Amino acid sequence: MKFSSKVKKCGLSPMRKFHPYAVAAEAKGRKIYHLNIGQPDVETPPQFFEAVRNFSQSVLEYAPSPGVPELIDAVQKYYDNLNMHFEKDEILITTGGSEALSIVFQCILDDGDEVLIPEPFYPNYATMVNTTGASIHPIPTSPEEGYRYADRAKIEAQINEHTRAIVCTNPGNPTGVVLTPEEQRLMCDIAKEHNLFIIGDEAYREFVYAGEPLQSFGEYADAAENVIVIDTVSKRFSACGARVGAILSRNHELLSEAMKYCQARLSVATLDQIASAALYNVGPEYFAAVREEYKRRRDTVVAKLAEIPGVVCECPKGAFYLMAALPVDDADKFQQWLLEEFEDNGDTVMFAPGEPFYGTPGKGKNEIRIAYVLKQADLERAMDLLALGIKAYNEKK
Amino acid sequence: MKFSSKVKKCGLSPMRKFHPYAVAAEAKGRKIYHLNIGQPDVETPPQFFEAVRNFSQSVLEYAPSPGVPELIDAVQKYYDNLNMHFEKDEILITTGGSEALSIVFQCILDDGDEVLIPEPFYPNYATMVNTTGASIHPIPTSPEEGYRYADRAKIEAQINEHTRAIVCTNPGNPTGVVLTPEEQRLMCDIAKEHNLFIIGDEAYREFVYAGEPLQSFGEYADAAENVIVIDTVSKRFSACGARVGAILSRNHELLSEAMKYCQARLSVATLDQIASAALYNVGPEYFAAVREEYKRRRDTVVAKLAEIPGVVCECPKGAFYLMAALPVDDADKFQQWLLEEFEDNGDTVMFAPGEPFYGTPGKGKNEIRIAYVLKQADLERAMDLLALGIKAYNEKK
Repeated sequence: MKFSSKVKKCGLSPMRKFHPYAVAAEAKGRKIYHLNIGQPDVETPPQFFEAVRNFSQSVLEYAPSPGVPELIDAVQKYYDNLNMHFEKDEILITTGGSEALSIVFQCILDDGDEVLIPEPFYPNYATMVNTTGASIHPIPTSPEEGYRYADRAKIEAQINEHTRAIVCTNPGNPTGVVLTPEEQRLMCDIAKEHNLFIIGDEAYREFVYAGEPLQSFGEYADAAENVIVIDTVSKRFSACGARVGAILSRNHELLSEAMKYCQARLSVATLDQIASAALYNVGPEYFAAVREEYKRRRDTVVAKLAEIPGVVCECPKGAFYLMAALPVDDADKFQQWLLEEFEDNGDTVMFAPGEPFYGTPGKGKNEIRIAYVLKQADLERAMDLLALGIKAYNEKK
Repeated sequence: MKFSSKVKKCGLSPMRKFHPYAVAAEAKGRKIYHLNIGQPDVETPPQFFEAVRNFSQSVLEYAPSPGVPELIDAVQKYYDNLNMHFEKDEILITTGGSEALSIVFQCILDDGDEVLIPEPFYPNYATMVNTTGASIHPIPTSPEEGYRYADRAKIEAQINEHTRAIVCTNPGNPTGVVLTPEEQRLMCDIAKEHNLFIIGDEAYREFVYAGEPLQSFGEYADAAENVIVIDTVSKRFSACGARVGAILSRNHELLSEAMKYCQARLSVATLDQIASAALYNVGPEYFAAVREEYKRRRDTVVAKLAEIPGVVCECPKGAFYLMAALPVDDADKFQQWLLEEFEDNGDTVMFAPGEPFYGTPGKGKNEIRIAYVLKQADLERAMDLLALGIKAYNEKK
């Protein structure tokens, strides 16, 4: 049987590639410290589960296609509190940020179109974009420059007649890069001047560590036609399993095209939407505590990396990831070796090798992504294992 | 800003087209009997809500991309009880039957490909198929033949070098047609001989009213490479708002292509999956009671239609819909008139006009789809209103 040429261009998740090796290592009795996955360990606010328990309708009906009104209200208020106003019909609730991205790409991309995305980038973008017949055109960055990309000359050099949109994951996954307000302004200006959509994937908005006010591309009301904000409760409230996200835009043509897909898939899960609305009742102390915890973890990881000779890594400003270049020949081989041959008191460590985060072939070979989602003591041990592993790996040759 | 040529080929839901007229009629004090929507009024089994209330994990984590193990187990056992065995890795849990369909179409369709679907068909198929760059090639049927389509000559006449798959909605939405075992066998044979996928959209499997055993294309293990079953808890358990469905297939290449999309969207809502697993604990008395209730409703609708002069309608064998040809010039105009000008003691009625269920332009103009999802007394009143409306509409001219 023949399969679509588009699905053939897509791959399985690189984050799961080492899963069989991890299973084998565990079967040998190894304890693995996981720095490879972005599943936060923070508790989901109890408001979610209370709302779920209080649901009293006897028929679990379809929700309205654009979302349940109480959740749309909650999202609207959340943005109003950030000094950005969206009308209710400028908010479409989606099945996670993932569906928000898929719907947006399906609305705006045709065969042969290109989307500019700074590399390294979230690998699932590739599946979402390739499926439309378009492709990702990477904006190159480097570990030496701290993976920063918001430079007019650098970006305009990549724009061509096929370019339709720029995706800014801000704060960045996998890099932790956070745009300054000037850089955000610049990105909007470039989008406006070149008639491009600018898609702000802002899943990690709350996770900024320098006391910055929370940012969004939604602030730039002058770029109303260009800006599309992708939102989600997943990381904001440590509610990844709720699968509740949103598309926000002031471009009404986009919204009415997106509505076609919202209606075709009927609705987003009813209970999860109602419970997600309740999440927006958490107070600022919730975010402050979570931010403080991740900041401590980030500082641990960065301090530990600074002690390893030959590692290139700038202190990331946001999200709960960082990319680092290691003094190894090949991060893939190194990961495999860590799982198959290395151990220290029975322990080893996993990260996500960097190459699949790049669109340019060959880049990222000695880089890794670290997700700092472990508790303090585990994180310290994991980083020590990484340091020991690098030393042993390079000495064995 | 430019939008995708594919989204431009898609439309908004035809079921929602008359929503503004309904709002205006209600504002005038009219009571509307809704035969236009497929939202069952049957209570969701309490097992769903019990499972939700008993969820005790403190972090609502991502579920595994192929689905939570307890739900995959439950689905496997359900099929084993129907004498069809699927391995656990032959079951992928999806966000409703809608996502199952979208993923399958994305896996198998390229620009210019065609999918054979008997018309009238579920209109959302068009959005899902058009988005891949392929198109629906309708298999024509007629109200006079009871919308039956499983005829070798009729189907083979529509197969060409672009044909990639046949979709059988069985039992049928909007027609209520149920394939006989011989017809199912024939459809599988045609798919095998012409090297086509056969997609069984079996959302209404439990809703058959002649005492037939429950059917599935999954029975035809000899067509393992061809058969893809689309499943969902929505109608089976009156849990439309859970958004939990599944792809089942023994074609392992299809499954591994589909897994790319499952991983790219990360997971299906965790709580809804766990609660849906609990739904599979309902006993056969649940299905028997629901089936009996819908059968009574179907009989009411069919009997009432038989009393209206000029209506063409065969008694449907399954689902909770039927299509009928009315003695009116245009079902769209008739619906608008019913909402704007007609009333009987302040009441009026809504159905879904038939044209959007057709792929062939101009077909279905005097047809309607009736969803018999109202309680007995309401259903009788709704059908009386339809009869009165037809008479008054035709007399006014």
